[in-house]
Amino acid sequence: MYDLVTFGEAMLRLTPPNFQRLEQATSFQIQVGGGEFNVAVGAQRLGLSTAWVSALPNQALGWMVRNKAREQGVATDHIVWHDGERLGLYFLEQGSSPRPSSVMYDRANSAISNLQPGEVDWDKAFQGSRAFHVSGITPALSSSCAECTMEALQAAKKHNLFVSYDLNYRKRLWTTEEAARCQEPMMEYVDLLITTEDDANDVFGHSGEPAQVAKELNDRFGLTACAITLRRIDTVWTGGWTAIIMADQLYEDITYDLENVDRVGGGDSFTAGCLYAWLTYGDWEQALKWGNAHSAIKHSIPGDYNWATAEDVKRIMAAAQSELRFKIQR
Amino acid sequence: MYDLVTFGEAMLRLTPPNFQRLEQATSFQIQVGGGEFNVAVGAQRLGLSTAWVSALPNQALGWMVRNKAREQGVATDHIVWHDGERLGLYFLEQGSSPRPSSVMYDRANSAISNLQPGEVDWDKAFQGSRAFHVSGITPALSSSCAECTMEALQAAKKHNLFVSYDLNYRKRLWTTEEAARCQEPMMEYVDLLITTEDDANDVFGHSGEPAQVAKELNDRFGLTACAITLRRIDTVWTGGWTAIIMADQLYEDITYDLENVDRVGGGDSFTAGCLYAWLTYGDWEQALKWGNAHSAIKHSIPGDYNWATAEDVKRIMAAAQSELRFKIQR
Amino acid sequence: MYDLVTFGEAMLRLTPPNFQRLEQATSFQIQVGGGEFNVAVGAQRLGLSTAWVSALPNQALGWMVRNKAREQGVATDHIVWHDGERLGLYFLEQGSSPRPSSVMYDRANSAISNLQPGEVDWDKAFQGSRAFHVSGITPALSSSCAECTMEALQAAKKHNLFVSYDLNYRKRLWTTEEAARCQEPMMEYVDLLITTEDDANDVFGHSGEPAQVAKELNDRFGLTACAITLRRIDTVWTGGWTAIIMADQLYEDITYDLENVDRVGGGDSFTAGCLYAWLTYGDWEQALKWGNAHSAIKHSIPGDYNWATAEDVKRIMAAAQSELRFKIQR
Amino acid sequence: MYDLVTFGEAMLRLTPPNFQRLEQATSFQIQVGGGEFNVAVGAQRLGLSTAWVSALPNQALGWMVRNKAREQGVATDHIVWHDGERLGLYFLEQGSSPRPSSVMYDRANSAISNLQPGEVDWDKAFQGSRAFHVSGITPALSSSCAECTMEALQAAKKHNLFVSYDLNYRKRLWTTEEAARCQEPMMEYVDLLITTEDDANDVFGHSGEPAQVAKELNDRFGLTACAITLRRIDTVWTGGWTAIIMADQLYEDITYDLENVDRVGGGDSFTAGCLYAWLTYGDWEQALKWGNAHSAIKHSIPGDYNWATAEDVKRIMAAAQSELRFKIQR
Amino acid sequence: MYDLVTFGEAMLRLTPPNFQRLEQATSFQIQVGGGEFNVAVGAQRLGLSTAWVSALPNQALGWMVRNKAREQGVATDHIVWHDGERLGLYFLEQGSSPRPSSVMYDRANSAISNLQPGEVDWDKAFQGSRAFHVSGITPALSSSCAECTMEALQAAKKHNLFVSYDLNYRKRLWTTEEAARCQEPMMEYVDLLITTEDDANDVFGHSGEPAQVAKELNDRFGLTACAITLRRIDTVWTGGWTAIIMADQLYEDITYDLENVDRVGGGDSFTAGCLYAWLTYGDWEQALKWGNAHSAIKHSIPGDYNWATAEDVKRIMAAAQSELRFKIQR
Amino acid sequence: MYDLVTFGEAMLRLTPPNFQRLEQATSFQIQVGGGEFNVAVGAQRLGLSTAWVSALPNQALGWMVRNKAREQGVATDHIVWHDGERLGLYFLEQGSSPRPSSVMYDRANSAISNLQPGEVDWDKAFQGSRAFHVSGITPALSSSCAECTMEALQAAKKHNLFVSYDLNYRKRLWTTEEAARCQEPMMEYVDLLITTEDDANDVFGHSGEPAQVAKELNDRFGLTACAITLRRIDTVWTGGWTAIIMADQLYEDITYDLENVDRVGGGDSFTAGCLYAWLTYGDWEQALKWGNAHSAIKHSIPGDYNWATAEDVKRIMAAAQSELRFKIQR
Repeated sequence: MYDLVTFGEAMLRLTPPNFQRLEQATSFQIQVGGGEFNVAVGAQRLGLSTAWVSALPNQALGWMVRNKAREQGVATDHIVWHDGERLGLYFLEQGSSPRPSSVMYDRANSAISNLQPGEVDWDKAFQGSRAFHVSGITPALSSSCAECTMEALQAAKKHNLFVSYDLNYRKRLWTTEEAARCQEPMMEYVDLLITTEDDANDVFGHSGEPAQVAKELNDRFGLTACAITLRRIDTVWTGGWTAIIMADQLYEDITYDLENVDRVGGGDSFTAGCLYAWLTYGDWEQALKWGNAHSAIKHSIPGDYNWATAEDVKRIMAAAQSELRFKIQR
Repeated sequence: MYDLVTFGEAMLRLTPPNFQRLEQATSFQIQVGGGEFNVAVGAQRLGLSTAWVSALPNQALGWMVRNKAREQGVATDHIVWHDGERLGLYFLEQGSSPRPSSVMYDRANSAISNLQPGEVDWDKAFQGSRAFHVSGITPALSSSCAECTMEALQAAKKHNLFVSYDLNYRKRLWTTEEAARCQEPMMEYVDLLITTEDDANDVFGHSGEPAQVAKELNDRFGLTACAITLRRIDTVWTGGWTAIIMADQLYEDITYDLENVDRVGGGDSFTAGCLYAWLTYGDWEQALKWGNAHSAIKHSIPGDYNWATAEDVKRIMAAAQSELRFKIQR
Repeated sequence: MYDLVTFGEAMLRLTPPNFQRLEQATSFQIQVGGGEFNVAVGAQRLGLSTAWVSALPNQALGWMVRNKAREQGVATDHIVWHDGERLGLYFLEQGSSPRPSSVMYDRANSAISNLQPGEVDWDKAFQGSRAFHVSGITPALSSSCAECTMEALQAAKKHNLFVSYDLNYRKRLWTTEEAARCQEPMMEYVDLLITTEDDANDVFGHSGEPAQVAKELNDRFGLTACAITLRRIDTVWTGGWTAIIMADQLYEDITYDLENVDRVGGGDSFTAGCLYAWLTYGDWEQALKWGNAHSAIKHSIPGDYNWATAEDVKRIMAAAQSELRFKIQR
Repeated sequence: MYDLVTFGEAMLRLTPPNFQRLEQATSFQIQVGGGEFNVAVGAQRLGLSTAWVSALPNQALGWMVRNKAREQGVATDHIVWHDGERLGLYFLEQGSSPRPSSVMYDRANSAISNLQPGEVDWDKAFQGSRAFHVSGITPALSSSCAECTMEALQAAKKHNLFVSYDLNYRKRLWTTEEAARCQEPMMEYVDLLITTEDDANDVFGHSGEPAQVAKELNDRFGLTACAITLRRIDTVWTGGWTAIIMADQLYEDITYDLENVDRVGGGDSFTAGCLYAWLTYGDWEQALKWGNAHSAIKHSIPGDYNWATAEDVKRIMAAAQSELRFKIQR
Repeated sequence: MYDLVTFGEAMLRLTPPNFQRLEQATSFQIQVGGGEFNVAVGAQRLGLSTAWVSALPNQALGWMVRNKAREQGVATDHIVWHDGERLGLYFLEQGSSPRPSSVMYDRANSAISNLQPGEVDWDKAFQGSRAFHVSGITPALSSSCAECTMEALQAAKKHNLFVSYDLNYRKRLWTTEEAARCQEPMMEYVDLLITTEDDANDVFGHSGEPAQVAKELNDRFGLTACAITLRRIDTVWTGGWTAIIMADQLYEDITYDLENVDRVGGGDSFTAGCLYAWLTYGDWEQALKWGNAHSAIKHSIPGDYNWATAEDVKRIMAAAQSELRFKIQR
Repeated sequence: MYDLVTFGEAMLRLTPPNFQRLEQATSFQIQVGGGEFNVAVGAQRLGLSTAWVSALPNQALGWMVRNKAREQGVATDHIVWHDGERLGLYFLEQGSSPRPSSVMYDRANSAISNLQPGEVDWDKAFQGSRAFHVSGITPALSSSCAECTMEALQAAKKHNLFVSYDLNYRKRLWTTEEAARCQEPMMEYVDLLITTEDDANDVFGHSGEPAQVAKELNDRFGLTACAITLRRIDTVWTGGWTAIIMADQLYEDITYDLENVDRVGGGDSFTAGCLYAWLTYGDWEQALKWGNAHSAIKHSIPGDYNWATAEDVKRIMAAAQSELRFKIQR
């Protein structure tokens, strides 16, 4: 029934304005975000029909998160509502060189960390759907979340969904050993693995040239494709974005130069663009190009998820090499 | 060493601006507050030397709370620092008739809720001090907090401190039965009990005329004095404030008419004004007048604690009955 | 398929903050609203499934309006998208006595004003639906909008929907004569007519006691019920709200005292509450009580539409006569 | 050449938002204002051609003040520019009952306080002009300002201008004795004296019924007319405004009920409305009505000066007694 | 009577803060601007006396635009006021690489688009004036605006004014063919033509080296001088600005490196600086240098028009090559 | 009793947001700062116990300054309170290339400028203390401030404090001749002199290679060490920071690349880091490294003083050469 179903946590993000340190803040800007939430939003805006599965506390902050998904057209029918629980929060400090941006989490005991296998009706969510996406954050939230992730992966395969997995290692949530032990068995259900060089090394112990790492991961886990995102960090405010995909062959793309308004969710936007194009065109070259362009635009937009349209992405791709690509659009 | 030591939780308060509902907020104004924190600040500003005892997480939000105490001159030497824990939060919706203001707490597992007896060096904090204040919120936070409260009360009496206790019943934290069972034994250490009519009835089962209730509480618990605060609620934006004190005799005062900018902390400001005047003048009539005037001003000031000065309080008391009491001060 | 379908314009509302005059503004707060949009949102939040039908320009401002409907769970499938057109705007000045709030419209040539009969697939929208609501603003937008309104009313009746009509006379859009000539023929399709005393007099020429006016309108147009909303204006910031419904008998309710954060959309909230309760309980007394309480809360919430929940409405109704109805909710 | 020339100081006003105390502010809203500046703006907006005479520092803040005058159409040709000097500032705390609003000045050594007789070319400013207005603040700024004020008054009379004088006693600037000694000789040049009951008593020693005081002042100083403004202070947020004028006879008006967004400049708006109507209609009854209505509106508008139009004033006067005077204007 | 008269539209500009997309905005910052408006402001601030001619709706937004002109000292006597019409709006999205800034217009049916020949009294406006400036936007607004532009050009020549014309092609308003057909006949009245390379090519079909293009345009249209502005676009946030002027000879200047706070109005600031210096010094080298420096500063200032002073421009020109040109000024 | 005592002025800093020019501002962001104030805050946050000595007006703005010191843990016991005086202000315009940031002072007649020798009890402040810091701004404020500075330097030496002096020449306060004449005699009390190349040349006439200049200053004044700060200015938004120290030998460090959120106070942060490390480790190499890293971070933090922690500084130093030094911290 959906082109894409995603599963994971969304949090309230609280950001002091104007590059203030958290300690000096007198107000917070409110955003909502989370890896799989961001993917569902991005893919929906590009043209897929998507659903986001999660657990939320049944109070105003949980409603706010649901509202933000609905605002973007993402289906929220499979959210599990928990009374008397809390929403995870995180605090973002926007930096400037030489002070990097940084994140402080307050996500322990969030509603989703208490989600138990059986609470989500995966058969219903996956009935008639085409693809499923989850990241390595979800199984890291709690042992029951790890069980739910496995439950979802197995159900996805049962329903013949294309399965995308973003490795997304979070050192505050578990050790690399725990991450490896938990996720290795999950890889058999995965079609597309998305990772950075660091995470591939930290969790699965593969290092070296990205194309080689991707190839090794494909071989080891029997993946259809492996995408490795390659961020160039020039300063806190500037950098570059590209990625490769190793599938039937190696796919490469240009690097987009970035001025970072908000880096958070850049990887999720890659995933969203990539899945949109893969599910729409069935072509890894398009998947890579859409993923990169969609991610590049994200860095210019405040918040965790991407307000770009397919039209925006096409314009950026078309103008990418032009001298006038940064000219004001009138 | 301090005129007044207080003990309790402080939280980050997050308030949507302009009367927005929590669900529709896009930013939060940040305040810091908590019953005993507010009392320490208020009394310090009026002229006492005060210390606030608590446990805080050793990260930016915990530092922010400490900073706000220091900003007001409140001593923070006896704060216990916990690594890896969280700060309690609460969300305030400012209302207008017929929608009352409302509060949603996210305070479970805060650093102070994990405070254990023995962590605070009460002997050091009370050495040479004159008075101690705590409210019924502190023992309600956790069973270890209840133990710490009893520990503090006993230490306070050992050091011959004047002990003030604000009953402050919070139904989200415990039942009236639990509140009664826990706090009855504490009352033997208390000199001044501060309560509303409702709390006196809900926790200790005394109802009727305020003066009569106060007298019964004095007799039952061997108090020196009992203050009952009497809020008149006209609308969400307007009301009135007064209180009585029953000590050697009944003390009464005028009622201040209020336009509510921020009602939160009104009771704590009463306590602060009352303790300031009692410790300064040793006179219950003054204690009552200072408590009421200080509380009345609080309602006009944003945030949980009171930015009034002793000068402000004197001016309000002096002008209270004047026709020109609301005239612009040039 | 929907409990309620509504049809009308939504505009971008631009409001200078802090009671500034439009001429002195340096920023605008953005809201989205419109009579029938507000009704769809309010009813959805209370528990109905609703759809809002309109025409929007296919650009960012049109998408913003659609997003706001989706954010609240309102179905947007039947919106007609026009390329190259504009969204109507209005500018709101919030006043204080003796300066009333005021509205300046910039709505000419909005996308909906160009909507033509046949563009909306009413059969599809009404298939399996229960009720339809439109106001007298929609036919006033343009002659083609008047035709579309008639088209919708006839289709609604064909599908046996309960039809609600808010007379809502706007003197900037048409004369009373035009309003009467256009709307009289529409009344035969209407089950519930909602109006103020002024509008009933200006458009249909009925004046006098509200109950009598309602009765005359029922008789003249063969209505099931007629609601007359009765706003008491004390000052710009304060007032009262009640309404009567004349159906099989006269229904009356208490008057809610109001502190106005934002008066706009108060009538729409009455309609939403009324329709929710009528469609849920089939009881005019409940319809009146829900309409009044829902409307009263609206005045405390910024924006055109109502962020209250059914829980909020029940609490307000239950506490309406209590002394502590304005007490802070902890 | 101008209908009205005014002479006095304008300052930068810095206001903490949201009823914050000055001590707790993290930002200031910027306004520009000053008694005679406000009168020039108000009268210009109503329809007179006005000029404001002052001295300003030749730097960005001085330019800002000039810009604000020009923005309203007030002529700034006769401003004297001083290099290397400062602009006076004042800090406004907006209050709520029982805490009144209050003002802290930082105006010492402002450019105008150093203005010397001869710097302003009064003959040029008054050539072809009709009226001159100054308040008791100007001579209080410095002894040279007192000399300049006398110089201006004498020049005004030489040019046969109608002279208006607002007594406006400021206790922070001089004693009542100083004020009396300085201003008594000025009164012989005055046609219209505007004062409050308090100022009339404090400076000139006349007390009692306003009409009687006005009559005594008329007689003592040979005035054409004396206006006494009568503010009713209900709370900090609410009150009433009216005034009387004693000229050939006593003129009285209704009292306007006020919800105070910003009380500052209320008296100046009375003067502006009064002078506009006197110079336009030559009728004290109109002068009083325009002064009162214009002043009443001012209380609803943020800033020191009045953004009302003549149209606004007429609407307020027409609706003053109507039940629907506070109804939203669509 | 004026050094410079300009003629064209001014719009309300609405900008989401903090790089937000239009679709995600919750507030707008308000600016006023328009090509010829910006030129009048810039030249006035530098030292010319200027007037801006336009048509405005006779309501608060029209008044706001007039106020902003007056605030800067620009004469507004020749504005034509239209009752019941609207002000044009535009929405600006501030971008960051790789997302360019973009503009969405809502200017159809603005008051000026309905301006008819004969409404402006050009003889009065030009009597005693020295120069006239208009851009290619004005004739593109409507056919009657094209007629008014021709009327103004002919009147300007009749009064022997120096005529400046900024080609400023806007593809949303007309095709290049329409632009060419309409503007070719206008060129005979023009002394100074200002254009970009793109516009020169798109409208008049001249491409190649800027100096060559300028020479061809001079020859073809009998111009006194032709300025070609040369923007270097490095990223969305950074770039460079210079221009050439071809008159009796070729004039060239350094390129200013830019950090873009607000690029809008950069070209207009070139024109303003250029005209100021030409009319003041009668020297094309000075005209070019002032134009470039004035434009470069504009990019650092929020809003459409330039708040620089002549002093600022001189400082930038003097420091342009210095190592310390970006040092903080204390 | 303190590790470090500093002496100097603190002012209220008012900054228009969003790169606005002062002339166009409608609000100011409020900061508190001053050279020696900033040093006391920075050193305290890193781990020293510090006191700030100054004179403040006894009103809300003076209290605000004291509060900000206390908020950071800086002792305020030796502040001298003056009734009826004013606080110095300064206005900061944040620039972008080619417009540099700039500062306008309004500090004449501030409370500290009236401070007289004898008002501060230096013996009490220095009793048991380790170091004293003052800058060349303090003696420049007034002749009595120059006397107080000498008084402090002599008392510091009497108490055997390590004396740090930041030359910090301010051309708006005095000429280079005055600065030289006044400060030369002070140098005999100084252990560590901190200066820029420009100031060393302007005040003391030493130019050339920084190491050579430092050596000459050491020799001429018998200093223990001389630090020369070396700012690389690339654009207004970007640059680099390093410094050298010449003591027993020459110490050099890497240059930190900067993205400037707020450059003000960068030098003070160098001093704070330097003094912290010198007093903690007694090692000039550490002093230089801590000074540079602490200063570099400052440029990324809004306000005059530095909210970094020792942990932050260590992280920046450790990551300084790493490719991932700008990676988001999760």
